[in-house]
Amino acid sequence: MTTKAGFLRARRPEQKQQRYAAILDAARDLAVRDGVGAVSLAAIAAEVGMHKSALLRYFETREEIFLRLAETEFQEWAPSTAAALAHAGPEPDDVADVLAGSVADRPLLCQLLLHSPLTLERNVSLDVVRAYKQAVRRSLEQMVPALHRALPALDEEACLDLFAMAGIAAAGLWQAAHPSPQVVALHAEDPNTTHYPDFRASLTRFVRVYLSGLLAA
Amino acid sequence: MTTKAGFLRARRPEQKQQRYAAILDAARDLAVRDGVGAVSLAAIAAEVGMHKSALLRYFETREEIFLRLAETEFQEWAPSTAAALAHAGPEPDDVADVLAGSVADRPLLCQLLLHSPLTLERNVSLDVVRAYKQAVRRSLEQMVPALHRALPALDEEACLDLFAMAGIAAAGLWQAAHPSPQVVALHAEDPNTTHYPDFRASLTRFVRVYLSGLLAA
Repeated sequence: MTTKAGFLRARRPEQKQQRYAAILDAARDLAVRDGVGAVSLAAIAAEVGMHKSALLRYFETREEIFLRLAETEFQEWAPSTAAALAHAGPEPDDVADVLAGSVADRPLLCQLLLHSPLTLERNVSLDVVRAYKQAVRRSLEQMVPALHRALPALDEEACLDLFAMAGIAAAGLWQAAHPSPQVVALHAEDPNTTHYPDFRASLTRFVRVYLSGLLAA
Repeated sequence: MTTKAGFLRARRPEQKQQRYAAILDAARDLAVRDGVGAVSLAAIAAEVGMHKSALLRYFETREEIFLRLAETEFQEWAPSTAAALAHAGPEPDDVADVLAGSVADRPLLCQLLLHSPLTLERNVSLDVVRAYKQAVRRSLEQMVPALHRALPALDEEACLDLFAMAGIAAAGLWQAAHPSPQVVALHAEDPNTTHYPDFRASLTRFVRVYLSGLLAA
């Protein structure tokens, strides 16, 4: 059964599970291609070959779909990054590069970090927000000790600060690095009027500088 | 003539100018009250007492209205902050506090910094984007020398870096500090699951730490 198959009503639990996963996959593909903000519930339904009303038996809202994807992003990001940090250091720049790279490798996470507080956490039930925040918390409970082991000079509070600000920087730099066609045209017209950063390079620079500020405090 | 007057068609240039300003004022009031993302063109039209079609003789789109407000925010922010920086320093923390305070005093700017790349710069003509980016550029041309005079150890590139990242941090921390009702309820249920920062305190801390990282580089 493919995501384009035009599903009949699922009756068995494994069929339901397949459809649930197919909806998430379709939303992920569209978000990577078009940007999270541009993906409607109707577009996800069309991509997966279901009616919108059928899709809403699986998810409360469009925003739940993306918040569930964000949950998965955190669940995947934390163990792989903790493992990479086990071999990083002792130079702070080395640790910063591993951390920045682990975020830059997840363009969907970078977008979802911006959309979560702005819209996703507003248009879902308390239960869905709780599941997402618990996933974030479990990720940080893995990541903080891993970062502290890589850089013992950084205490727990500073580790949390670095994660929080790296997330905010990733969300903002992602937007800045993927400008509108109008901004691209303006830059071509006169590079002095506006410029836009390379995402990975600017995030890496940010994490290096902020980490060095935390260590200097 | 008040903004609620239910305007007849404006014929004289000064009447047109009044309506243009009344539309901007209404959008600003609604954005401060409800958040930029929640303010529709229809709501602005209702607030100012005009038909939507009449309002669209003054502005291309909802997004132009907010990008014009962002232009004004930059035009007002730069001279007052440059003046405040003239009396700041020589301690980096002192300069950081002036800079962070000048941004935290402008909650509308903090919201518009997030919405500009995400939506505003996408739904307007090249001319409107050009006017906005030129206003940003002129602000930075005032601010960079003012910051460099307050902290001569910070070169021009580092000054620009500080402004760019302070803007991204302000946009992200503003969202984090103004969470959804669901996140507020979750925090009340169990403060360990999620927390949200105080906006001014977290922005000030960020600018201090990032500035110290730039000076350590």
